[in-house]
Amino acid sequence: MPSTIPDIVISRLPVYLRALERLSQEGQEVTSSHELGKHLGISSAQIRKDLSHFGGFGKQGTGYKIAFLKDQLRQVLKVEREWQVALVGAGDLGSAVARYKGFTERGFHIAYVFDSAPEKINKRIGSFIIHPVADIPKVIAENNIRLAMIAVPAENAQQVAEMLIQAGVRAILNYAPINLNVPDNVHVQYIDPVIHLQRMTYYLT
Amino acid sequence: MPSTIPDIVISRLPVYLRALERLSQEGQEVTSSHELGKHLGISSAQIRKDLSHFGGFGKQGTGYKIAFLKDQLRQVLKVEREWQVALVGAGDLGSAVARYKGFTERGFHIAYVFDSAPEKINKRIGSFIIHPVADIPKVIAENNIRLAMIAVPAENAQQVAEMLIQAGVRAILNYAPINLNVPDNVHVQYIDPVIHLQRMTYYLT
Repeated sequence: MPSTIPDIVISRLPVYLRALERLSQEGQEVTSSHELGKHLGISSAQIRKDLSHFGGFGKQGTGYKIAFLKDQLRQVLKVEREWQVALVGAGDLGSAVARYKGFTERGFHIAYVFDSAPEKINKRIGSFIIHPVADIPKVIAENNIRLAMIAVPAENAQQVAEMLIQAGVRAILNYAPINLNVPDNVHVQYIDPVIHLQRMTYYLT
Repeated sequence: MPSTIPDIVISRLPVYLRALERLSQEGQEVTSSHELGKHLGISSAQIRKDLSHFGGFGKQGTGYKIAFLKDQLRQVLKVEREWQVALVGAGDLGSAVARYKGFTERGFHIAYVFDSAPEKINKRIGSFIIHPVADIPKVIAENNIRLAMIAVPAENAQQVAEMLIQAGVRAILNYAPINLNVPDNVHVQYIDPVIHLQRMTYYLT
């Protein structure tokens, strides 16, 4: 397995993994780049090329063994283990994020929830106790947490990101509708549904 | 203004627009490709090139007038008007989507909410009355709705998408963790936070 895989390939692997997990749930054991491509709207040539980065996955004509390919992708993406995630923000958006069942089902465990509102501290969202934002440095560092989700208002997001990074976080999923300035060794991904809607209206007549 | 702008450029315009709206809220009137690039982590050359598709926006040395550029981008993206959106799925995820204030604030009005569970029909989520999925064809067609969001379980998403498309929907924001097969004239964007987390774990040590 090569030590570096192009970022663009890495960005597609979780989508392949999700499709494979689905096929596997449906009881299927073998697939092809053609079938995957049809499911995903990606060319089979692209899929073969992406998967060839790991070498020897599929054989021409025999297809991919789903269980094996799934395991390989999980290892490459480092999602064969459970990840602890910190969530900052326990308002409407943060509460919805905390309650979303899909994280735990797919290997991401929200370990701590933080908020700055004094009236929320020590209250609960579902099974989570809300901790004060002031505890971020101690809790993140002591528990060696590398992943965080930000669900605070846009105007507070940059400051929260800096606290998290200072404490050791290296990957942030940002739900606040604002871009974050982070050092090169920190990864950020964004979730802003309005951006996605605005990417489509251009095409509507 | 050219009739076709590359898809990759279109996909970046909403991010530029969001940054401009923020600068504008902060009282700023003029910006530069350099400043925008710093905010967004995109090279200033890229930004100048993207914005040059519309011709004559910024002048070398004088920068971009934010109000003007914002208006232009809103027109190009067709978000100077309000869009009516249908939401299918009124479970945990759909309810969170329905309650998210960011849509209305940024020009997307959830006009109808649908669910298939008989016990939910005619109940409310916030201000929305839940309609039966069986009403999708009639309601979507009569109200000429082109945009929809899907927040149903993965196993029902494809079928719901087909109903929506049949009724006239041409752009779908899919929160269900599954890829949709749609005709070429239909646009789909995906929101799956686990995919975003899995795109970052590869880089963590």
